This record gives sequence, C-alpha cells and structure tokens, in this order.
Amino acid sequence: MSIAYSTSKIYKIINGRLLINHEIVENSYLWYQDGKIIHPQSLFFDHHRDADEIIDAKGLLVVPGFIDTQINGAYGIDFADYEHSVETIQENIDIVAKGLLRYGCTAFCPTVVSSSPEVYEKVLPLLNHRKGSATGGAEILGAHVEGPFISVEKKGAHKQSVFRDAKEGIAAFDSAYGSELLKGSKAVAIMTVAPEIEGVSDAIPDLVQRGITVAIGHSACRIAEAEQAVTNGATSITHLFNAMQAFHHRDPGLIGVLGAADLPLPTTSKGHPKPSLTSPCRHSPDPRPFFGLICDGVHVHPNSIRIAYYSHPSGAVLVTDALSAMGLPEGEYTLGGSELQVDKNGAAYIKGTSTLAGSTVTIDECVRNFQKFTNCTAVEAIEAATLHPAQLLGIEHQKGTLNVGGDADFVFLDDSTGELRVEKVFVAGDEVSF
Amino acid sequence: MSIAYSTSKIYKIINGRLLINHEIVENSYLWYQDGKIIHPQSLFFDHHRDADEIIDAKGLLVVPGFIDTQINGAYGIDFADYEHSVETIQENIDIVAKGLLRYGCTAFCPTVVSSSPEVYEKVLPLLNHRKGSATGGAEILGAHVEGPFISVEKKGAHKQSVFRDAKEGIAAFDSAYGSELLKGSKAVAIMTVAPEIEGVSDAIPDLVQRGITVAIGHSACRIAEAEQAVTNGATSITHLFNAMQAFHHRDPGLIGVLGAADLPLPTTSKGHPKPSLTSPCRHSPDPRPFFGLICDGVHVHPNSIRIAYYSHPSGAVLVTDALSAMGLPEGEYTLGGSELQVDKNGAAYIKGTSTLAGSTVTIDECVRNFQKFTNCTAVEAIEAATLHPAQLLGIEHQKGTLNVGGDADFVFLDDSTGELRVEKVFVAGDEVSF
Ligand SMILES: [Zn+2]
Ligand SMILES: [Zn+2]
Repeated sequence: MSIAYSTSKIYKIINGRLLINHEIVENSYLWYQDGKIIHPQSLFFDHHRDADEIIDAKGLLVVPGFIDTQINGAYGIDFADYEHSVETIQENIDIVAKGLLRYGCTAFCPTVVSSSPEVYEKVLPLLNHRKGSATGGAEILGAHVEGPFISVEKKGAHKQSVFRDAKEGIAAFDSAYGSELLKGSKAVAIMTVAPEIEGVSDAIPDLVQRGITVAIGHSACRIAEAEQAVTNGATSITHLFNAMQAFHHRDPGLIGVLGAADLPLPTTSKGHPKPSLTSPCRHSPDPRPFFGLICDGVHVHPNSIRIAYYSHPSGAVLVTDALSAMGLPEGEYTLGGSELQVDKNGAAYIKGTSTLAGSTVTIDECVRNFQKFTNCTAVEAIEAATLHPAQLLGIEHQKGTLNVGGDADFVFLDDSTGELRVEKVFVAGDEVSF
Repeated sequence: MSIAYSTSKIYKIINGRLLINHEIVENSYLWYQDGKIIHPQSLFFDHHRDADEIIDAKGLLVVPGFIDTQINGAYGIDFADYEHSVETIQENIDIVAKGLLRYGCTAFCPTVVSSSPEVYEKVLPLLNHRKGSATGGAEILGAHVEGPFISVEKKGAHKQSVFRDAKEGIAAFDSAYGSELLKGSKAVAIMTVAPEIEGVSDAIPDLVQRGITVAIGHSACRIAEAEQAVTNGATSITHLFNAMQAFHHRDPGLIGVLGAADLPLPTTSKGHPKPSLTSPCRHSPDPRPFFGLICDGVHVHPNSIRIAYYSHPSGAVLVTDALSAMGLPEGEYTLGGSELQVDKNGAAYIKGTSTLAGSTVTIDECVRNFQKFTNCTAVEAIEAATLHPAQLLGIEHQKGTLNVGGDADFVFLDDSTGELRVEKVFVAGDEVSF
C-alpha cells in the first residue's frame, strides 16, 4: 500500500506544550503539511524528509482553534441583516470571519435569529460551509438557524411575527428556510427549535436525517417534552438557562435533561458527548445532549455554570451568542430589526428593558471565565470550546483536536499568568497576522 | 494501661455483608457488647473470650441504622400538636419512635413546624435527646425546629401568624423557643431558618455556638444571602428544591449554593461534608452545606435529585419530611393546626390546594428511590441516610457507621431483588421484634 506523497512544505512546531488526548504533552512536536496535521513517521522512514520550517512555540500551550457554534455577528454586523446587496453582505461576513481570528476562533456557525423566508433565502447561501484561511478568516461550518420554530413565551430578542409551527412536518421547515435546507449541514449546521411547538418534535428525525444538528432552545417545554425531543434525535440545548423555564422542583423543564437517566443509549458516538462519571452508562456515549453556555458572567450565574458542569461535564459547549455589538463600544444597536442597548459591561439588552438580547463576549474570554467559574483544568476549559463543539457537529476528525489528519488550526496560549491568553493563531497551517 | 473489662454478653454477627468504610465487606464479623460496636482483638488476646451469642445474618447486608433528620410525625401524631396532656404527648412520641423502627430508622430528629412559644415550651422538653432501644423506640437526637424565623413567601404549610424576625439577635430566638434553646443540641439539634429575615443571618454564629445545626430553608433568599448564611455557619439546606426560589438563570438562589466555589474552607471536618470530586478543595471538608432531599418521587423530580447529587454527592441527606399521615391511609388530617389531604399515592397537600404539605414516605423507601433515581450504588444510597445525616449532626463517632465505638444500631437489608428491603433491625444491640 502506498500513500500519496506530497512535496509541499512540512512544518514542525517545537517547544510547544501540546493538548493531545486530554493532556498537556511536553517534549513533543506537532507536524503539519497542506493544512493538515500529519504523522512524521512515514516522512522519516519512507521519504527521509525533515521539516522545511520550524515554528518555535516558546513554551506556550498549543491547542486546537476555538469553535463558536453560536454567534449572531460582530463589529456592527448581524448575520440576519439582509437589507444590503449580496456583495455587501458577503463583505460583512468576511469582516466578521477575519475579526474572529484574533480571539482564537478558527471556525464558527454564523447564527441567524428567527427570520422570514426571504431573509433565509438571501443570507443562508452566503453562510454555507467554507474553508478557513489566515487571510480569508475563520472557517464557516454552516449556519446555526435559531428559530423561527420557537416559543413566544421564551422569545428573548426574537421577532414573534415570523414564528411558525410545524403542523406539516418537514415541509414546514422547507417552507420556512427554503431550498438551502435540502443541502443539510453544509448550509444549516445547527437548528434551534422548541419541541413543544406543534409538529416540531416529530420532525426532528427528518432534520437529523439531513445531517442537521438539532438543538432545543427558546422553549417553555416541560421535562417530558425535552426528553422526547432528545429521544427523537436532538443532541444539544441552546444557551442553557437562558430562554427556558426556571428549574421548578416538580418539573425541572429543559434544564432537567442534565439529570436524565433513562434516555435511550446512542447507537453511535457521532454527535454525542463522551461518557463521564455522571453518565447513565460508563461504556456508551452519553445520551444526554450537549449544552451551550454563555460564560460572560451576565447571562448565567457562575454557580449555575458549575452545577451544569458538575452534572454533565462532557456536554459543556462554550458559545459567545455574540451579537453585532461585539467588538463595538457601549451604545445602541440593532439585532434582526430589534433595538438594543449595550451597557458598559458589554451586556446587551432589548432597549428599555432588562431582557438580555445576546452577549458581546469573545470566545477566548468565555474559556477564561469557564475555567474561573468551574475551577476546572485548562484542558477541560479548552475542550469545552474545541473538542466538545466539534463532537456536537460530528466533525472531531477534522476540528477540535490536534490529532493526525485534522485541520492545522491552532492557537498558541500563554498561561503564565494563570489565565489563558491568545498569543498566535494559525488557520489551515498559516499564521494569522493581527 | 488497662482497659475497663466488661463481663456483659458479647455478640458476633456472622455471614453478614458489612458496610465498612464506604465498601461492602464480606467474610468479616461485627462484634458488639453493651450496645456498642467493639474491636474483638483485645477480647481474644487479653481475656481469652469468644462471643456469647452468634447472630447469623444469612448473607444479608448489615448497615448502620437509618437516621431521619426531618420528620413531623406519623400514625396520626404530629410533634407540633400540644393540645393534649404531657402524658399523652409523651405516649404519642413513643408510638412514633417505636413505629419508625420497622423502616430501619433507629434515630431521628422529631420536627416541629413554626409554632408559638407556648407550644415549644410544652413539646420541646419531651423531644430532648433520648437513647434508643428495641422496646422504647428509635433514638431521639433532639428536635428539628423548622421556623418560625422563615419566609412568608415560602411558608408552605406553616402558619404565618407565628412567624418572627430576629431584629434582637439571639434574644429573639430565646424568646421564640424559650429556655430549651439554652440546652443547645440536646434539645434543638437542627434549626431551619430563612437568612433573609432581619437579624437571622447575623445570629447564626450564636446558634452554632450553642451546638445547634443551622439549616437554611423556607426561604426566598438570593444566592448572596445564602452564601453569607453558610459563611456565618449554616451547614444544611432544608428539603432542597421545596419551599425556595426556583433556579433562576441570573440568580440561582438557595439551590445555587450547590455550585458555590468561593465559600471559606471549614477549619474542622465536624459538621461538614467530606470532599468529593466536585469539592472546591479535594483536601479539605467541603464548605458547601449538606442538603435534605425528600425522595418520595412527588416533592422533587427525579432529574432534579440527580442534578443535586451530581453537583455535591457527599452532601446528600435523605429525609422523609413525613407528617402525621405517614402510616395512615388516604384521607384528611391536620399538621400544626392546618387541614391536609393525603391522596392515594401518599402525597399530602394543604386541603383544597396543590401546595405540598409534607410527605408520607418512609426512610427505607427514600433510600430505594434515591438509588433508583440517581443510579448510585447501594453504599452511596445507604450513606445518604446514615453517614451523611450523622456527619451533619457531628455524631458520626456514635451513629451512621459500623465503626468500633459506635452504637450497635443495625439494619439487615435484603438486596437480592435489586431493591434494599429491611429484614431485621437492631437498636443498641437488641433486635427489634415487629
Ligand atoms: Zn437565543
Ligand atoms: Zn418544610
């Protein structure tokens, strides 16, 4: 058996402390070529080649690039804003994709709040999967469509006028999102739905069949409805604690899924959390969903973050849920047509109310906060923004680890101060210049 | 050095599977004499004595007697009912103390709901610490006074008219409960208070000084108030999830203490949970409080039980919170003067409402439910009703384990069906005949 032999440049990262298999490994090297992490053995033995270029990590942590599965926009740009030419929208997307790199975010799911069919028709084709690059920006992993099959009761900053039900099953989804939905995960990576909306729970298998990751959120569902949705194929909870029922003692609602014990065990590990000490079965993937956490210190109380993490550590996925105001100073902005105000702490509210509308936190700040809040290890905090979101999307062979065969998306982190600070970022093997 | 030598009968339990140091130990014996577990070595070597009586456990589990730290009454009797002669009240207490033995409950804190000073004056002297015996009944560990320093907002079945504040500090407590409070834990083992009531939080150190275990409950407190109360010396949460704020995302309230990370570390292990995998420090006692759980399947959703257990496993304390209707059939009863109705599942409501008033579950049923709900081991379930309540009360050298020097209170459990069933009960070394 012979392996196709590439003559392109071989890179070797030295003096890095590598996050490999849940551990920080010192005195090891990371090799890559053609934007992919490679195993050096065949190079030495078969081709007698050494590295063409040495990258000195100078003792920094070398970890996979961060993945943000929920981000509405940044720098004054909102992915749901369609009132521009296609060219302008495309430029805007590129601005965000490039801007995210400085936070170590090398891949993301641009998130579109509940919108009308004409909005989806215009913007979704621009949010299809697209490879990342140091000059072009973070990789787009397909859109995260949040709504419009969600609950009026838990609408948050979403525009109720576009909300829908799914009486007609999958046809209702096709009619809401248009033909892009037929492309599956290439176009729509994640869909957030409320399972109590008529027809939604029953349609989950059809959505999963198309490769879409189904998340439960903006929902007033009770625990039984939540568990049924998970049984039907939902594998995530969208921004846990926010836009859902409070944890009532006799019906813990959607949050209560973290305590579920009787969910059917997954027949595949793909798309499911790894078993942990709290898993119903220690030998099978955890049947409980992943859960997004907005670790900005405003959306969720640190003690709640801890309780969620203790309950289901392998399911934690850090998301920014950032909106257009991210990267902008205090002031007033718009999100999907709604007026918002951002206070001096960076928290964004629906103008004139105390309803949170999204955050302005960055993903690297989420990692730092999560470590601080939960007192977890650096590895656990980093994995919640790398491995876990990759597992959620079923792309952990390409993203979220430093395993051989994966994309050469790296972040060099300085942990010398006890906090993880982004120092260098590489996308598809190329260093990003800030 | 010579040890006082007792000539009383020596007992040896054989063929038991003993719960020792968190493990089920086979092929070992349990020795006891004068109502205390003894170490057999000195007998053999110093006095050449063997057992006088062999007890064959026939392969059953041999575990410490269950301890119920919150029980309002049973068999139509309510510990807060003072409208009888002292003799009748005493007889009633004895009826309950004896009746509890059949469930494996060998020690308990008779619980008195919020009452007026004249009630406490009459009933508390009858609920002082009293040794248990096979004929006299389960040991009384001192009363658990629940209220009257609690929240109107979270009053449950308590009579609001007797509620108080603690503006005058400890004097307010002395005036509420009377001179019995000066006896400390001999009279009042546990006191449930709401820390947001004026003066309460500041008075906690004085209560702790008297040896009283302070529990937070029937409280609408916010997380900061709850953490302050714990910092001041509160070491328990009363019936977690019931009679407290729902778990709001931005302020998790009293429930949120399970996620606390910055509480001061205890300077003594006495009265605090042992460190677990989720403890802020793995080498110190857990600074978070113990928490009572009513595992009747009605008061708290099983998923909530799991989340609490995952968050803080060493703090779980099973309580029945049983009221006078326990041991009685479906119908209408009274608790502290309130009219209640018990449905066919044994759940007790305030008459004509859906407000839970207490349970009718037995402690052995709580152990079975807890194991079922959390999927924990038999050892973990049993310890939540033995070791943990003993630690909460700081009496683990006497109760809650099978360690040498402890009281010879045992339960023989049949686990052959996968459920823990009480087969035999011993109090102070004597078998109880049902
Ligand atoms: Zn949202
Ligand atoms: Zn109560």
